Amino acid sequence: MEMHSARQLQELPYYEAQGEECRLFEHAHTSRLPLLIKGPTGCGKTRLVEHMAARLGRPLITVSCHDDLSAADLVGRHLIQGGDTRWFDGPLTRAVREGAICYLDEVVEARKDTTVVLHPLADDRRMLAVERTGELLQAAPGFMLVISYNPGYQNLLKGLKPSTRQRFVALGLDYPAPAVERAIVAAESGCTDAVAAQLVSLAQALRRLTAQDLEETVSTRLLVMAARLHRAGLALLPACRAAIIDALTDEADTSAALHEVLRAVIGDG
Amino acid sequence: MEMHSARQLQELPYYEAQGEECRLFEHAHTSRLPLLIKGPTGCGKTRLVEHMAARLGRPLITVSCHDDLSAADLVGRHLIQGGDTRWFDGPLTRAVREGAICYLDEVVEARKDTTVVLHPLADDRRMLAVERTGELLQAAPGFMLVISYNPGYQNLLKGLKPSTRQRFVALGLDYPAPAVERAIVAAESGCTDAVAAQLVSLAQALRRLTAQDLEETVSTRLLVMAARLHRAGLALLPACRAAIIDALTDEADTSAALHEVLRAVIGDG
Amino acid sequence: MEMHSARQLQELPYYEAQGEECRLFEHAHTSRLPLLIKGPTGCGKTRLVEHMAARLGRPLITVSCHDDLSAADLVGRHLIQGGDTRWFDGPLTRAVREGAICYLDEVVEARKDTTVVLHPLADDRRMLAVERTGELLQAAPGFMLVISYNPGYQNLLKGLKPSTRQRFVALGLDYPAPAVERAIVAAESGCTDAVAAQLVSLAQALRRLTAQDLEETVSTRLLVMAARLHRAGLALLPACRAAIIDALTDEADTSAALHEVLRAVIGDG
Amino acid sequence: MEMHSARQLQELPYYEAQGEECRLFEHAHTSRLPLLIKGPTGCGKTRLVEHMAARLGRPLITVSCHDDLSAADLVGRHLIQGGDTRWFDGPLTRAVREGAICYLDEVVEARKDTTVVLHPLADDRRMLAVERTGELLQAAPGFMLVISYNPGYQNLLKGLKPSTRQRFVALGLDYPAPAVERAIVAAESGCTDAVAAQLVSLAQALRRLTAQDLEETVSTRLLVMAARLHRAGLALLPACRAAIIDALTDEADTSAALHEVLRAVIGDG
Amino acid sequence: MEMHSARQLQELPYYEAQGEECRLFEHAHTSRLPLLIKGPTGCGKTRLVEHMAARLGRPLITVSCHDDLSAADLVGRHLIQGGDTRWFDGPLTRAVREGAICYLDEVVEARKDTTVVLHPLADDRRMLAVERTGELLQAAPGFMLVISYNPGYQNLLKGLKPSTRQRFVALGLDYPAPAVERAIVAAESGCTDAVAAQLVSLAQALRRLTAQDLEETVSTRLLVMAARLHRAGLALLPACRAAIIDALTDEADTSAALHEVLRAVIGDG
Amino acid sequence: MEMHSARQLQELPYYEAQGEECRLFEHAHTSRLPLLIKGPTGCGKTRLVEHMAARLGRPLITVSCHDDLSAADLVGRHLIQGGDTRWFDGPLTRAVREGAICYLDEVVEARKDTTVVLHPLADDRRMLAVERTGELLQAAPGFMLVISYNPGYQNLLKGLKPSTRQRFVALGLDYPAPAVERAIVAAESGCTDAVAAQLVSLAQALRRLTAQDLEETVSTRLLVMAARLHRAGLALLPACRAAIIDALTDEADTSAALHEVLRAVIGDG
Repeated sequence: MEMHSARQLQELPYYEAQGEECRLFEHAHTSRLPLLIKGPTGCGKTRLVEHMAARLGRPLITVSCHDDLSAADLVGRHLIQGGDTRWFDGPLTRAVREGAICYLDEVVEARKDTTVVLHPLADDRRMLAVERTGELLQAAPGFMLVISYNPGYQNLLKGLKPSTRQRFVALGLDYPAPAVERAIVAAESGCTDAVAAQLVSLAQALRRLTAQDLEETVSTRLLVMAARLHRAGLALLPACRAAIIDALTDEADTSAALHEVLRAVIGDG
Repeated sequence: MEMHSARQLQELPYYEAQGEECRLFEHAHTSRLPLLIKGPTGCGKTRLVEHMAARLGRPLITVSCHDDLSAADLVGRHLIQGGDTRWFDGPLTRAVREGAICYLDEVVEARKDTTVVLHPLADDRRMLAVERTGELLQAAPGFMLVISYNPGYQNLLKGLKPSTRQRFVALGLDYPAPAVERAIVAAESGCTDAVAAQLVSLAQALRRLTAQDLEETVSTRLLVMAARLHRAGLALLPACRAAIIDALTDEADTSAALHEVLRAVIGDG
Repeated sequence: MEMHSARQLQELPYYEAQGEECRLFEHAHTSRLPLLIKGPTGCGKTRLVEHMAARLGRPLITVSCHDDLSAADLVGRHLIQGGDTRWFDGPLTRAVREGAICYLDEVVEARKDTTVVLHPLADDRRMLAVERTGELLQAAPGFMLVISYNPGYQNLLKGLKPSTRQRFVALGLDYPAPAVERAIVAAESGCTDAVAAQLVSLAQALRRLTAQDLEETVSTRLLVMAARLHRAGLALLPACRAAIIDALTDEADTSAALHEVLRAVIGDG
Repeated sequence: MEMHSARQLQELPYYEAQGEECRLFEHAHTSRLPLLIKGPTGCGKTRLVEHMAARLGRPLITVSCHDDLSAADLVGRHLIQGGDTRWFDGPLTRAVREGAICYLDEVVEARKDTTVVLHPLADDRRMLAVERTGELLQAAPGFMLVISYNPGYQNLLKGLKPSTRQRFVALGLDYPAPAVERAIVAAESGCTDAVAAQLVSLAQALRRLTAQDLEETVSTRLLVMAARLHRAGLALLPACRAAIIDALTDEADTSAALHEVLRAVIGDG
Repeated sequence: MEMHSARQLQELPYYEAQGEECRLFEHAHTSRLPLLIKGPTGCGKTRLVEHMAARLGRPLITVSCHDDLSAADLVGRHLIQGGDTRWFDGPLTRAVREGAICYLDEVVEARKDTTVVLHPLADDRRMLAVERTGELLQAAPGFMLVISYNPGYQNLLKGLKPSTRQRFVALGLDYPAPAVERAIVAAESGCTDAVAAQLVSLAQALRRLTAQDLEETVSTRLLVMAARLHRAGLALLPACRAAIIDALTDEADTSAALHEVLRAVIGDG
Repeated sequence: MEMHSARQLQELPYYEAQGEECRLFEHAHTSRLPLLIKGPTGCGKTRLVEHMAARLGRPLITVSCHDDLSAADLVGRHLIQGGDTRWFDGPLTRAVREGAICYLDEVVEARKDTTVVLHPLADDRRMLAVERTGELLQAAPGFMLVISYNPGYQNLLKGLKPSTRQRFVALGLDYPAPAVERAIVAAESGCTDAVAAQLVSLAQALRRLTAQDLEETVSTRLLVMAARLHRAGLALLPACRAAIIDALTDEADTSAALHEVLRAVIGDG
């Protein structure tokens, strides 16, 4: 039985930088400081981490956090095997031993007992206390802790405690500027530049309309999905309806308003 | 001991299309994109998935979600056997390995830790992290993730998070148009066209009356059940009372109003 | 060790029909449709099911639902035996295998994860997915699923979801008409027709008084209990006080009002 | 290892009847009907049950219910012994097998899953379904189910469901009349008749004062405790303060008012 | 492995009586009645119990209750040893067997299932039902049950039920009178009489000020701690600041007001 | 397998005293009194404890508390090994045996059952009851219990109970005075005195602005992180943005206001 596969990315994953985020990531890595990435759904947080892990030549271990995720899920647990309890490292412990980058996506969702393992890792001690086995691990040199969250729907009950937050260098991401976003959509979907341009125009128009009213607006990811459906043979209008409009809302009124924008920008696709 | 039986449907299940839903399903499958089906109870969501699974020649694995359903129920778990822990794949893991279509019905009901396994499966990684065994599975080529929910009684506490929702192509279904619904009722129950027509007229009348007041209105499924009771020998009026009116309400006043419509449309059956 | 005893009733349990409920039950059984019985406490729901099970020659398996009842309680579970985990069928699984009638009394009380096993059993698939063993059982021919609930104290938190409810043919029961109720009281308690008549008159008077104010009113069961106490030698007045009045209320004022009715109808017993 | 000791009471426990309660208890036992005893704290419910169990010559098994008490606590459970799971009867199962009286004190406190085992025992089936072992036990002839609760602090969340309550013959108890109460205090504590009379006068005075304001008022049990402290050598005034006043309230104002009554009735003890 | 060490106190722990509390304790012990001690934090409840246990020559077993403390924690549990389950007595069971004094500190914090074991122990039965092993223990002669709570922060959710409370003789304690408190502070810390007098004056002044505003006010324990810090070499002013003021409040305003009193009473220490 | 590594610090960790805190710590240690340290995030609580542990020559065991931390996590638990349960000391038990300093960081977060083990350790008994093994440990001479919390976000639900709090000598810390803080920043990051002075000026300005509005303001730790990023090659302005501004807020308006201060103090870095 083999535990938690870290991914050593062979080729550099495509990432179109929005600004100085790659340099900041690199300086945090050099200074052995942990990093907090803030930004809306689908703006590229995960891709940035994959890109930088490859650039820095570190293995990457990703954990999508949720509200049942406990410290034991990160650190490891005993399983009974052959009548005996045997220890299995969790993803965080493995990253600490191997000097990997450990990326905890949407960390505010996790249970609060994760702070007990993150705190000594996130300050200058860089230590992981494996309570159940009594080990006190010093993080291997390349180890870096990266966490992310989405300030758009962070709520009072689930915010990071200041004592956790103040241990991390922070980096804010947003949806990319139009030129960058066109390049991303074309590169990720294989669509033409013209289609990419149409989709980014649509995103611009819809974002103006929806920023106030919806929990989330059109992400770059939705544009890529529409482009891929279109490449598979579906006309652009129904592709945008399925990948963008119907993904954004269930409300008949909102949906009608978004369709109007869709038809104005795309025509009859 | 054998785990989770996927159904390889031998004959194409009957499905009367309402519009372009079959084409959209097919394009999503071709583009390797996951699909979200929205629609009211009994409008044919499950039947559409069964029909398309057969048409695409993929095994189908269906899971009805509920609020105790956890990631482990989907991914698998260790059981003790012969004094040793042995791993058993859950339905999602099996679908990933076999390239099946995995259909999570009413996904918003499931516990939030399911997002951790759905996210990397639902974006371009198409990976399933089996945390407990440390495996990182690449979905087999034919694999497709389909989820559904009913916007009619989705509540604030149980909505899909935008970060989950924006990973899916969306498809909205509703009750079928009268001609389509008549064909469905006749085909599913074996009743005459005349009875099917009466029942669909009744549905039209009741839906006008109940759309505002009841949590749900008359579904196509209820019409089929009334038709089957009638075919088994029960007069049409008591069949509709038992299968439709008494299924829709416990309130004496509402019930009386619905009975009035019933008698107006069906007569004394 | 032997699991869950289904009762094969040797003689036909006494049941005095209120209307067409026996025919509807039979038609639902013939049409392989599941049945939902609605009605107040003590009106005869359980007795109807026992009667019909005997008439249809099917074994009967009854489960009184409560809010800790989970899907595993219905489907079965592994127990450790001789160092090994062995599977034991739950009552629902057994009914599915044997073609029995499975009666889930007060089903709204059960935990929500029961829906996952009821749904595929309650529609035209008639299948039970035994998740833990991976079996997908086709219900044996005589199998029928019957559920009941009491609309009088069904609350918002605990209603059946429409997607569950619309899978069942519905049947409403109430307290029986006076002549029927007299016959039942006499037959069940062995009391004289005169005593039965007095008790049913009392029930009529008390029901007029209490329908608005009490959570539940006098059931046929309470009349039978009073008649049995009387047959055991207790005067009718204290028998009615113990079996009926003190069972209905703890409030001094309400109790006084009910006693007044009691004395008016029964005299000094 | 030996399970649950039923008490076969050798001598008849002292019980001073308030009215017809012993006859009603006996008739319910003869008629094989279960009994519900209602009454305030310390009015003699437990003593009545002990007395009647001895009079009827039945073993008595008492369970004080609380909000973690589950059906398994009543019915029994498997324990691992010598590497194997072995079954141990719970108190209810044992009472059913042995024909004992099973007394569930303050039954409304128990978890709701207890209803599943009480219902078939409390109606004319008199059956106990031992789900985990699959046994369906018919109660032995002398078996009787007795439950109690205190209407004074029964709350909405914890009331008996009508479908449970309507299965029981009901019996209301209260604090005894003065002459009866004097006899009880003297008999239970060994104090003189004069002291018993003083204590009962005190109880009368305090009950007039406290009925509205306190959750509970002076019970017969508190009088007996004061009398016993006095017999052990403590003056009557401090004995009443410790056993009665300080047991009834923590509020300085209420305490002062009760002390005034105490001094008026007892003098300086 | 050895379970729960009862303490047989060799020398009589120091206790300065406030009033008749020692006599009441002794009479309750003689009368075999359980005792409830009420009083604020740090007023000497635990010390009184230790003192009386030594005086009465009984072993003492103390349990600090908290909201995860269950009946099993008090009574005992099975542990797996050598592949077999073996029983280990809990502190209450041990006290019952050995005739010790069992002191449950802050009993209202414990889980409600503790009442099931306390009730038969606290009335004239003096029995402990060890449900899991089926034993019914008669308390050894010297056994006494003592519980305590603090009326100052007893809340509605966590009060003792009247049916529990009315089983106990009650005893109220408060902070001692000045002369007594001076003697205690000097005896416990080894400080001079002058320092003890200064500290008790300070307590008097602070208690006048804080009774309304703070959850708790200065306890005798805090005075002893200040005196001990002073004896270890710290000046009296910072000793009082650390042991008293900073322990009572985090509010800047309240803290300033308390400091003013401190400087007025102690000077510059 | 080896349990819980206490750290015996070889060299004295750097700590710049704010006032008399080191003396108070030492006196509490001498007097065998437990210590409560209050203060905001990142003001040096942990560092003070490490420094004093080294100075007093005691091993240090640190536990970051969280709301799933239970008494068993502190005291120890049984694990199954080779088919047998074996006991493993938790961090608190080990500290008690070895005479270490046990530091419970943010103790108010822990579950309430921890009080049961802390109370007898925190008063003059200095005893740890290891309930599961029945041991009653006397703390070794050097043992000291230190707890901390942050009054800034202590809430009503999670405050220390007075009965816990009044067992500890209290010590309040705050952010250091400018000269001290400059020395700390330079020493911890290796930056120049000029940069340290700039950063402390920035902290002063931001603290004036944010004290009212933010849950927490700029800690010394954030200044050190900015200085380290700057030393790694990042300009001072982006270093302060990443380490300070983006760590303090997600609000666009607040962020703009903080940036203005940043530019005013640092220039274009």
